[in-house]
Amino acid sequence: MPGSTLGELFCVTNFGESHGPAVGCVIDGCPPGMALTEADIQVELDRRRPGTSRHVTQRQEPDQVEILSGVYEGKTTGTPIALLIRNQDARSKDYSNIAETFRPGHADYTYWHKFGIRDPRGGGRSSARLTAPTVAAGAVAKKWLAERYGVRVRGYMSQLGDIEIPFEDWDAVHTNPFYAAGSSRVAELEAYMDQLRRDGDSVGARIEVVAENVPVGLGEPVYGRLDADIAYAMMGLNAVKAVEIGAGFHSVEQRGTEHGDELTPEGFLSNNAGGILGGIATGQPITVSLGIKPTSSIRSPRRSIDKQGAPTVVETHGRHDPCVGIRATPIAEALLALVLADHALRHRAQCADVSVETPRLGQARG
Amino acid sequence: MPGSTLGELFCVTNFGESHGPAVGCVIDGCPPGMALTEADIQVELDRRRPGTSRHVTQRQEPDQVEILSGVYEGKTTGTPIALLIRNQDARSKDYSNIAETFRPGHADYTYWHKFGIRDPRGGGRSSARLTAPTVAAGAVAKKWLAERYGVRVRGYMSQLGDIEIPFEDWDAVHTNPFYAAGSSRVAELEAYMDQLRRDGDSVGARIEVVAENVPVGLGEPVYGRLDADIAYAMMGLNAVKAVEIGAGFHSVEQRGTEHGDELTPEGFLSNNAGGILGGIATGQPITVSLGIKPTSSIRSPRRSIDKQGAPTVVETHGRHDPCVGIRATPIAEALLALVLADHALRHRAQCADVSVETPRLGQARG
Amino acid sequence: MPGSTLGELFCVTNFGESHGPAVGCVIDGCPPGMALTEADIQVELDRRRPGTSRHVTQRQEPDQVEILSGVYEGKTTGTPIALLIRNQDARSKDYSNIAETFRPGHADYTYWHKFGIRDPRGGGRSSARLTAPTVAAGAVAKKWLAERYGVRVRGYMSQLGDIEIPFEDWDAVHTNPFYAAGSSRVAELEAYMDQLRRDGDSVGARIEVVAENVPVGLGEPVYGRLDADIAYAMMGLNAVKAVEIGAGFHSVEQRGTEHGDELTPEGFLSNNAGGILGGIATGQPITVSLGIKPTSSIRSPRRSIDKQGAPTVVETHGRHDPCVGIRATPIAEALLALVLADHALRHRAQCADVSVETPRLGQARG
Amino acid sequence: MPGSTLGELFCVTNFGESHGPAVGCVIDGCPPGMALTEADIQVELDRRRPGTSRHVTQRQEPDQVEILSGVYEGKTTGTPIALLIRNQDARSKDYSNIAETFRPGHADYTYWHKFGIRDPRGGGRSSARLTAPTVAAGAVAKKWLAERYGVRVRGYMSQLGDIEIPFEDWDAVHTNPFYAAGSSRVAELEAYMDQLRRDGDSVGARIEVVAENVPVGLGEPVYGRLDADIAYAMMGLNAVKAVEIGAGFHSVEQRGTEHGDELTPEGFLSNNAGGILGGIATGQPITVSLGIKPTSSIRSPRRSIDKQGAPTVVETHGRHDPCVGIRATPIAEALLALVLADHALRHRAQCADVSVETPRLGQARG
Repeated sequence: MPGSTLGELFCVTNFGESHGPAVGCVIDGCPPGMALTEADIQVELDRRRPGTSRHVTQRQEPDQVEILSGVYEGKTTGTPIALLIRNQDARSKDYSNIAETFRPGHADYTYWHKFGIRDPRGGGRSSARLTAPTVAAGAVAKKWLAERYGVRVRGYMSQLGDIEIPFEDWDAVHTNPFYAAGSSRVAELEAYMDQLRRDGDSVGARIEVVAENVPVGLGEPVYGRLDADIAYAMMGLNAVKAVEIGAGFHSVEQRGTEHGDELTPEGFLSNNAGGILGGIATGQPITVSLGIKPTSSIRSPRRSIDKQGAPTVVETHGRHDPCVGIRATPIAEALLALVLADHALRHRAQCADVSVETPRLGQARG
Repeated sequence: MPGSTLGELFCVTNFGESHGPAVGCVIDGCPPGMALTEADIQVELDRRRPGTSRHVTQRQEPDQVEILSGVYEGKTTGTPIALLIRNQDARSKDYSNIAETFRPGHADYTYWHKFGIRDPRGGGRSSARLTAPTVAAGAVAKKWLAERYGVRVRGYMSQLGDIEIPFEDWDAVHTNPFYAAGSSRVAELEAYMDQLRRDGDSVGARIEVVAENVPVGLGEPVYGRLDADIAYAMMGLNAVKAVEIGAGFHSVEQRGTEHGDELTPEGFLSNNAGGILGGIATGQPITVSLGIKPTSSIRSPRRSIDKQGAPTVVETHGRHDPCVGIRATPIAEALLALVLADHALRHRAQCADVSVETPRLGQARG
Repeated sequence: MPGSTLGELFCVTNFGESHGPAVGCVIDGCPPGMALTEADIQVELDRRRPGTSRHVTQRQEPDQVEILSGVYEGKTTGTPIALLIRNQDARSKDYSNIAETFRPGHADYTYWHKFGIRDPRGGGRSSARLTAPTVAAGAVAKKWLAERYGVRVRGYMSQLGDIEIPFEDWDAVHTNPFYAAGSSRVAELEAYMDQLRRDGDSVGARIEVVAENVPVGLGEPVYGRLDADIAYAMMGLNAVKAVEIGAGFHSVEQRGTEHGDELTPEGFLSNNAGGILGGIATGQPITVSLGIKPTSSIRSPRRSIDKQGAPTVVETHGRHDPCVGIRATPIAEALLALVLADHALRHRAQCADVSVETPRLGQARG
Repeated sequence: MPGSTLGELFCVTNFGESHGPAVGCVIDGCPPGMALTEADIQVELDRRRPGTSRHVTQRQEPDQVEILSGVYEGKTTGTPIALLIRNQDARSKDYSNIAETFRPGHADYTYWHKFGIRDPRGGGRSSARLTAPTVAAGAVAKKWLAERYGVRVRGYMSQLGDIEIPFEDWDAVHTNPFYAAGSSRVAELEAYMDQLRRDGDSVGARIEVVAENVPVGLGEPVYGRLDADIAYAMMGLNAVKAVEIGAGFHSVEQRGTEHGDELTPEGFLSNNAGGILGGIATGQPITVSLGIKPTSSIRSPRRSIDKQGAPTVVETHGRHDPCVGIRATPIAEALLALVLADHALRHRAQCADVSVETPRLGQARG
């Protein structure tokens, strides 16, 4: 498969460019019989939508999703679910100046050299706008996982630039524009972002995603491991440069006596594994951490070259998030949900008849 | 595809268990006409082989590879290359005690619950022994990449437990059992490992892998990005819990003015991108960093449960590397080579006719 | 991949139901830089469109295609090409009576038992309307094959019920509603169809498809052979029950001395192989023949059961082609083009560097 | 995936050449917990083995299969099952004369032009010997289908050259070297074959394959239909030029009132559909018919060219079946079993939770 499809059985094919007629996706493999409306999807799209705070791009579009197929009388039919989101607020003039040069840190250079042609309007295919279809598909996966297995997928921002944001409680996530799991640092974050905009600069972020109630058994070693597919999906998110599962890089300095999660009849005593052992889900919460680079489109002047190879200086104006990480939380949730739904189908294909009497351990009670 | 296949066009299907008759793989998609002998593969297998220093498992087997198909008169024919490695030193008795319990931090628990049956001998399918076929296949990919594009893939250990190992020079890598790129810390590492063995404990490690001369253009956004596939392959390596590309998690604290690699007619001025922008190779070196957890099979007693769910204490004796990271360097190189070979084929399938006149930039001259 | 995707590198994902909001597809993998407009696609859609003669269903819709993505300033960009065709003439009332029963010979029964839910309006997902996106995608494949390799794909009807229609010349195909390659039998075919409609009955047909100038080398034995993929695509066309390549079933009675196509420096002397030997294209014309069953939705009463399993009698009214084979020619052409485009990409991925000096033989001069 | 893999979830990767060290395959995706021994596989291999009558090639090898992985204590573990068959009777000298020329009707020409290199020994990769791994894998699929669903897959020869062989009873199939389902024509077939050998010629055959007790619901329209995948597998069998499902080409002349299988509470009244409607299994027997061309390697002289394009005459000596169709029956059974096993897994991945109360109809009682 070419690269615009995610998943093998719960499968999403993404299409569109930032300023073309539309973006969207086709979900093939969603089980039949699940209640599904556009509102189920719209709620997740609204979470990632630009223009909802002053810290993100002011592009104003409703991102209204239309279900084109695969749903009959409010239920999925098991046939492909095509989702369409028309592009409405496409101010092409903002981007005309960048068609001839390459923004440092941006995909301009690589798209041009790969394809010999690129749509420069709003970043074209490389725009973060293409995460909208991912979020829409993720909404369907989330719903199916919740109804079928009780899985809950949630995320939050744990760091913005050099400001660490401690986890306080899940309920706070929806009360601030940063997806911070707590309100104690929000004022500081607001001030930080305001200064960044004044500086014409951008900054990175770290996002945590957690899936609870994941059935034990998902994952297909030796290559198609659950952690491998999570890493694939997350590293494929625009601007992500690093992915950790469980203790992540902290594992490097851990001793085996510290890292290996002990088991008791009441459950695992810790979760350094991040819910995955040998590439297969343990039933503990799956914990993922992402490192996101700063936005490459910034106002500050930077050295670059043009298509003829001559030196030039690039300043990017127009609407750009000074921290793409701010909107990454719902996208990362969608990606985790899509990977889990895919592996749930793959697991039951091969192992539907497996019956193990051993108690399956729940959450860590460490 | 079930999970034992890596790649879409340069494709490896892995088989075997640690103490079954054999391990091996089938490589399908390798281009025809390349000179290939068993010696080309053996040299890489010998690099990852156990028993080559006192710091790794003392399992003594030659890991002799046999080419079963796909090569005629010393050249690849374009048909599947099957590689066979017989298991010889399989002391099953060492493992009989672990069939009924689950080692903390080990795949015992998840394999049992996924499949309802598991081969406990030497870790069965979850053993690090299954990286041998990956290394063998990687040797073929490396050779093709080198001959066709001049690509060079190399790696080294940059951290063992809490000891950071600075990069000094590539030539040192083959002079010590740790794949350290320098000799200044080797004595310290030796002492550290000796103490660890005496403690009956284990520790993690960090590995760096670099690919040079990668053609610009490899990678298929929006999901099948080159960085996504690298993350997939690396996170799928036993015991890996974290993957970074380029500046990795350091990107979180960087400003856009610092992170975005500037371009000049002479080349990129830095490589925070790690050779990948928008999921597509830039032509700069691809740089990857892995975090590896400590070995889970350790002598120290740990709390666990048995198959009936009753509490027990597990101590693992037998031959186990106290740091699985020590042998990870050649495996990580193999995985990177396999991903690059696959994307090289995918890229030329779609873009063979693309001709871009813009100068393609070489290595960073930062 | 779930079943709505065709191809591995030149890849089409089909969506939609007969009377839902829209049908369409996403083409992923089309090479960049090819001129493409909606008119290029519309011309093929118009060929398969209902309502163009009295012998096909009188559903009147323009089947207007919209390119949603993947084309910038009139050229393909190498990113997914999404094609949308809105359903306009959806008279749902015609089909309400069939929601509770199963038409003999129709997919009603199997969709219901597979998915536990089905969209009964116009046949839902099983409708021949879903061949429209296939034809649209095939138009793109045809154009690329023609421009890149000079491939020409054409078809015609060679039998309608028990009337054999001799091949006379290609130019006649577009001059009659049957895609007959000659005008000598057209009056007879018209009369036959008129009688069939009066009888409330339907009939089958045989279609021939030919691709010329196919590059030698396409096809991937031992399973992914070119003939295998052609058979897959053709047998997957609604109502097709039989597929032949070259001499087809006639080969059963042939002697080896008769069947094996002899070679001379001027070319092959015959083409019993139908342009494929050992699953790989020879460079001769690829010749395919399809057997199509009679339409299952007919006016004549037939025994069936309802969803509760009780016996009933089914008569289908509404708009149905009495011979689905009449519109099959452009669809079969599209499928052959899609398979060839896919294999062209697959072949050059692996064998782009192959250079064989032996003369490649052209068309048969038998 | 390159072309040596069949199936998406119950997945076989085939390797080897006729006169290389070995042939074999890796089965990935077989469900865990099924009893499996080498004897289960050997019985099917013995059915297709050369040298078992004077009418097939006298190559004498035991075709002894070795299970290399995926089975522990006599049960499948859910991990890849690698099967190895060493080549023993490889008389390379028989084939040395054909390395420089192309046999009419043979894959010599296409392999050479595709890959620029070919193993000429015994046909190399294009040899019918590569059906041995397919048969071995099919034995595993057959066993799983039988134990899990009660599916039975059987086949017979229905025509040899111009001799039609009526179906008399299944028990006769194993009593004659032709897989004829009856003994009335066996003497005639023996005489026919003897004459053919004296003539230095070869002939085609027709094979029927039937699967009973297939669960309703298997198949994934619109492209991944069950009939499409059957056609793919069968047309991919060496020398097959035609495939029919159910009434096949006979459907062309049928009226809708004749073709559409009526339903009653007791079952379908006929089976023109061949057990598949809309690409999905109905629960009726799946019936497939194959047309096989005559062997291309014959003793009679034929015109050809050499690698330099100069005219030559080719006579093939050595061991060749004068009718490759004679050994095709067990291979076709294996292919049908593999397709069904794959679709059984795919179906339950998506539709495991579907519960339909309507009676599912059994075999036709026509």
